[in-house]
Amino acid sequence: MQGKFITFEGTDGVGKSTQIRRAGDYLKRRGVTFLVTREPGGCDISEQIRRILLDKSNAEMVPQTEALLYAAARSQLMSSVILPALREGKSVLCDRFIDSSVAYQGYGRGLGRETVMRINEPALFGRMPDLTILLTISPEEAFRRKNGVHDDRIEESGSGFFSRTEKGFAAAAEEDPARVRVVEAGGKSIEEVAGEIRKLLDGLYGW
Amino acid sequence: MQGKFITFEGTDGVGKSTQIRRAGDYLKRRGVTFLVTREPGGCDISEQIRRILLDKSNAEMVPQTEALLYAAARSQLMSSVILPALREGKSVLCDRFIDSSVAYQGYGRGLGRETVMRINEPALFGRMPDLTILLTISPEEAFRRKNGVHDDRIEESGSGFFSRTEKGFAAAAEEDPARVRVVEAGGKSIEEVAGEIRKLLDGLYGW
Repeated sequence: MQGKFITFEGTDGVGKSTQIRRAGDYLKRRGVTFLVTREPGGCDISEQIRRILLDKSNAEMVPQTEALLYAAARSQLMSSVILPALREGKSVLCDRFIDSSVAYQGYGRGLGRETVMRINEPALFGRMPDLTILLTISPEEAFRRKNGVHDDRIEESGSGFFSRTEKGFAAAAEEDPARVRVVEAGGKSIEEVAGEIRKLLDGLYGW
Repeated sequence: MQGKFITFEGTDGVGKSTQIRRAGDYLKRRGVTFLVTREPGGCDISEQIRRILLDKSNAEMVPQTEALLYAAARSQLMSSVILPALREGKSVLCDRFIDSSVAYQGYGRGLGRETVMRINEPALFGRMPDLTILLTISPEEAFRRKNGVHDDRIEESGSGFFSRTEKGFAAAAEEDPARVRVVEAGGKSIEEVAGEIRKLLDGLYGW
């Protein structure tokens, strides 16, 4: 039996890391073996690519290069970590995946969904996530949660960029509602959000 | 007037660097302003990508990642160096370009020409070279010229890889004979080869 491939998406500050930990705790209690990884990164070569992508001194990077580097990091992570784990029957929880590329480079940077998907076709090896949990909050709340601090090059891209990426995430949910499940995180406790995610996991695993 | 975009292709050891210098000398005598660049690399971000690509310790890199990284380096070089130079009326001599991706990743690594071209579509910004000089020698002579030394990760890929890439270069010349001009370098002096290239440049510039 192949493991389940579960991705977590949403803007920075929405609580993905916390909810991935909580989802992992739940899977552990249920006896599911899994690993947690992240994009860009998650293996040695992809972490090298991550450093180029997030380095603030690479301000002159064009959207095409950015999209291609994310796809390069993805193809390596897929082939060396995610696909082998799934084949061994392990589930994979991944912090960001293809929907982030569509949202950030396709919508945010304006490359368009089609170009981003075409670039990513070889990086996906024909395997899309079984479930994508899209966490959403209002732009104001996202900004408040991050305390207005921009940690890296991508986050420094301004509020127009932010609202375009939100549209990109929303479009992903409309495009593929069976896979991409929206969990509204605004004004809810961590436990409330974790409870909604547990229900989605129950559905995925048939519990 | 836009500058001319001239690329030099062929296997390692075929004499590209020498012939680029000679072609540059000729253009200088003719009063053409130009710059010389190389792939992967040629600007700060692309040189960072180059280091990942050629690092021998990245032996587990899959062909998809390799092709995407070359395309990422290309899109940055195009947008920050090649296209601005051409717009200013400078000619550009580039050591390797899209045909190397098709030959090495498409044929050598087996990704196929179509996948490589699809990945590279955003990296080309709709601008193909005006002239591509494809230098060819026999595999035996290429190996002899390099003294059997493998300088980097790509060159360590073996002789089956080598003959597949040669097929890829030959296919590029068949596909687009008006752009890709084959110059047989085997058994000829540097000056003889340089003379043939000068004739191609005469044709391109209308001299």
